[in-house]
Amino acid sequence: MDILIYWLGMAAVAVSAFTGVVEAERKEIDVVGATFVAVATALGGGTLRDLLLSRHVFWVADQAYLLTAAVCGIAIFFVMRRRRVSQHWFLYPDALALALFTVVGTQIALGWKAPWLVASLMGVVTAVFGGVLRDILCNELPLVMRPGQLYATAAWAGSLCFIGLRAAEVPMGWASALGMLTVLALRVAAIRYHLTLPYLEQRRKP
Amino acid sequence: MDILIYWLGMAAVAVSAFTGVVEAERKEIDVVGATFVAVATALGGGTLRDLLLSRHVFWVADQAYLLTAAVCGIAIFFVMRRRRVSQHWFLYPDALALALFTVVGTQIALGWKAPWLVASLMGVVTAVFGGVLRDILCNELPLVMRPGQLYATAAWAGSLCFIGLRAAEVPMGWASALGMLTVLALRVAAIRYHLTLPYLEQRRKP
Amino acid sequence: MDILIYWLGMAAVAVSAFTGVVEAERKEIDVVGATFVAVATALGGGTLRDLLLSRHVFWVADQAYLLTAAVCGIAIFFVMRRRRVSQHWFLYPDALALALFTVVGTQIALGWKAPWLVASLMGVVTAVFGGVLRDILCNELPLVMRPGQLYATAAWAGSLCFIGLRAAEVPMGWASALGMLTVLALRVAAIRYHLTLPYLEQRRKP
Repeated sequence: MDILIYWLGMAAVAVSAFTGVVEAERKEIDVVGATFVAVATALGGGTLRDLLLSRHVFWVADQAYLLTAAVCGIAIFFVMRRRRVSQHWFLYPDALALALFTVVGTQIALGWKAPWLVASLMGVVTAVFGGVLRDILCNELPLVMRPGQLYATAAWAGSLCFIGLRAAEVPMGWASALGMLTVLALRVAAIRYHLTLPYLEQRRKP
Repeated sequence: MDILIYWLGMAAVAVSAFTGVVEAERKEIDVVGATFVAVATALGGGTLRDLLLSRHVFWVADQAYLLTAAVCGIAIFFVMRRRRVSQHWFLYPDALALALFTVVGTQIALGWKAPWLVASLMGVVTAVFGGVLRDILCNELPLVMRPGQLYATAAWAGSLCFIGLRAAEVPMGWASALGMLTVLALRVAAIRYHLTLPYLEQRRKP
Repeated sequence: MDILIYWLGMAAVAVSAFTGVVEAERKEIDVVGATFVAVATALGGGTLRDLLLSRHVFWVADQAYLLTAAVCGIAIFFVMRRRRVSQHWFLYPDALALALFTVVGTQIALGWKAPWLVASLMGVVTAVFGGVLRDILCNELPLVMRPGQLYATAAWAGSLCFIGLRAAEVPMGWASALGMLTVLALRVAAIRYHLTLPYLEQRRKP
């Protein structure tokens, strides 16, 4: 079980590294810039979670995470030099990575005795902060701030669902699976049906 | 006394959450984006201070802070959907929050045995970093970098005043009050009389 | 020997503070904004390294670093108000600071028992993150993301060289000197001959 979670986590790191570089495509970057973006996107969320919880940063002790993120970033960079890589290929793998990071982040925060609201935020942070960091590094408005993606929303809903199920003493395996399903369902629905939350329209300043 | 400081701190968090969302108005954001901005603005400064001092992050153990910031962010968001909220309403409450965060941040750093220059910077960081984070998230040039606000300057002066008074063995209550008054006086003067420090004019690159 | 390293580190902090303000010249900033940028550029890299390694942040205990960065930032600000300061004057001192920060960062990470790949990243982070932070604060695309500087690349090569030499039991002094030379040689070659790594050209989005 733990081994399954470890390899799923590694797969989520790989997917995030790919999407980081693909999203950064609009900028002129060289191979080191691409590695940088891949590592920041893949490890940024878990890093912020660990700093906020005063834990040891997860990839410092086990360098397999760093290696995976860097190798995936370099690999996709060279693929993208030869042929066009569409962001659409990664939409569903990315939703899966979002679901996985959310539940793993929430599990870790609960295990660290964080109160429930803080734990739910840690799930969201683990899942979305890598992307925020990528957008900040690329000097763009973070995706999570733009309406109509249900990105952070899906993560938050899944995280709260997981916490609620755990509070009701549902076993860890079931709670994790249902939390991940909630994230996936909401995110896929947002991609398919262009769902949006209420948002402010852009106004001109006087 | 401690209870007074606690509630004043909570009020400062609420005011920061409001100003965060009001300042972010120029961007199209949905309700989750607004909550994100509110939390980052209200808790960002204290979080960076705690990370730099190797303390436990203040809002992880006591989730009332996180709840206050999130609820205020959501509330102001729905108010702003219905009617125009002027930034001017928050100028003076925001100056008060600046003063409070400065003195609380400096107190905590001194209590943690930080040297005086570091402690004064921690006061400034507590007070202004939330706003810096908000501007980075919204992909704007941080307000603190733009001349003519005396924002960080007022915080720094108040922080140094508090440290000087404490070194002269003035009791905590008086030193805190005078430090806050210094911040308030400078900030209000800057708002009223458009004071500026010497600044570099923008030059064109060759 | 330790005293030499201490003073070299302080010199690197001073050079970084200068370049921070000179690079920020394009923005209208006042003296406090300049100090802010100088401190972030000079201390940002080492701060991130210490946070990631769960160490105490190096400048919190010894405020000479903070004082140096702030004084240099203020000094160069007033020089720049009177006369034009060219970025070119700082190209070679900055390359030296890059080399020094890289090797010191890697040393610290190895001493903290970080695995080799993590230690090499810590060297790069120590050397380049201050500049990344400056560019984020100034709302620009970070230099390290733009191709054709070999900035992070030079740091990474020097860091790996140092780690390899240490693994081969070369004494600390020689390994440090050769690591620094590697960084310097690559960076100077990049400045002189406009070397580039493979990079993605900017494409228009459909």
